[in-house]
Amino acid sequence: MLSNNKIKYLRSLDKKKFRLIENKIILDGLRLIKEGLNQKINFESIWINEAIENTSTIIDLTKILKQKNISYFFESEKNIQAVSNTKNSQGVIGLISTDKLYNEDLNMFKDNIVVLDQISDPGNLGTIIRTCAWFGIDSILLTKNSGDIFNSKCVRSAVGGHFYIKNSKYVSPSEILSYLKENDYEIYCADLDGDSINNIKTKKKWALVLGSEAHGLDKEFQSELKITIPNYGKIESLNVSIASGIILNQLCS
Amino acid sequence: MLSNNKIKYLRSLDKKKFRLIENKIILDGLRLIKEGLNQKINFESIWINEAIENTSTIIDLTKILKQKNISYFFESEKNIQAVSNTKNSQGVIGLISTDKLYNEDLNMFKDNIVVLDQISDPGNLGTIIRTCAWFGIDSILLTKNSGDIFNSKCVRSAVGGHFYIKNSKYVSPSEILSYLKENDYEIYCADLDGDSINNIKTKKKWALVLGSEAHGLDKEFQSELKITIPNYGKIESLNVSIASGIILNQLCS
Repeated sequence: MLSNNKIKYLRSLDKKKFRLIENKIILDGLRLIKEGLNQKINFESIWINEAIENTSTIIDLTKILKQKNISYFFESEKNIQAVSNTKNSQGVIGLISTDKLYNEDLNMFKDNIVVLDQISDPGNLGTIIRTCAWFGIDSILLTKNSGDIFNSKCVRSAVGGHFYIKNSKYVSPSEILSYLKENDYEIYCADLDGDSINNIKTKKKWALVLGSEAHGLDKEFQSELKITIPNYGKIESLNVSIASGIILNQLCS
Repeated sequence: MLSNNKIKYLRSLDKKKFRLIENKIILDGLRLIKEGLNQKINFESIWINEAIENTSTIIDLTKILKQKNISYFFESEKNIQAVSNTKNSQGVIGLISTDKLYNEDLNMFKDNIVVLDQISDPGNLGTIIRTCAWFGIDSILLTKNSGDIFNSKCVRSAVGGHFYIKNSKYVSPSEILSYLKENDYEIYCADLDGDSINNIKTKKKWALVLGSEAHGLDKEFQSELKITIPNYGKIESLNVSIASGIILNQLCS
């Protein structure tokens, strides 16, 4: 059974400070856990609400957990909700290590890259990570004042997208630009005023830079090629995660 | 000053039941209120946190409010937070009527249409509304089990997108299809298995049907043309608001 101390420990992982010490995160919800299992993520434990023990979903899940030799425990709804970082827990919570989840060696960033500059909203960050996974982008660079990709809301929004990202690193805009230029990347910066994305023809490997809606692009990126999504309406801006999807579809197709 | 009764009244608008009786909603936050002012939305009142009275943002805002003859009041931070539907209010809250915001007469839906089928998450709904506004789509049909577009989280996510939607109505899938077919629309249903969106060439007016990630498309839509966003990765699904952006860019360009 989950002791009070263990519950306290699991809850503490919601705070970046503790998470960085422990290098562990909670996966909260069935879809996330299933994506983790598909991607052979190393689960330490899984806790399941005992009230749903006999549902077909949980019977199927525990079969897989047995096969994979992952330890799981049935817990009271109260304990599960105490650990959950959502208002209404789905009743399945896992603990994984983030140790081997990412490479941070910049020299391993060899394919197309998405660069996130000062994007702080965890929901947007997570949705962008999921969108990158859809488009097969496995390398993400973030400027140092960007949000935390292991924030629980970001992990939930990405619905497993994290497991498809191989390379991820927080660096300064100038380091990012130096690396991209030394390695002959085409650099596209999404902006409200630039060349239409519908005219882009890429041949080389590329990096797409996305800035925050609130702050725009860092000044270091201002002198790079700007690209824009044609606006057919009168509203002034588009959500940055939506912009990421539209531009990635254009760059990848 | 905001009386306790008025605060209670304003808070009650967060509940759909009361909102439908009153036909009024709260606009919470400066960007939303500015979009409303740009779009000549009829504000009943605006309340501002007195702690930010002398900031340039508020001085500029009150100039506009005076010009437009909109009544505004400075209130204690405590009162503003009591009315706000966000955790940390930005300090500017407006009350508007939804009476004249939309046409619900189906015969007025004459241009391209976005159809939302069982999309319930208010964040996704709001982001789709904002994306429609960007692409100049001003008509949205929703199946009856879709979420409430005036939910406060949806209004915040749309950041003013609501003010650009002229026509909006909740109807059944069969009514939607009858209307679209009688009026010679091309119907495209977004699905995980369909023709690539990158091959679509539209000449006629069109309707794009988006279903929920959890439930997929209603069976009524299953026999219509399905289109899909090419998947270059290994993750199984894409967020529905991201899908809306990618497909609308394709249909509009």
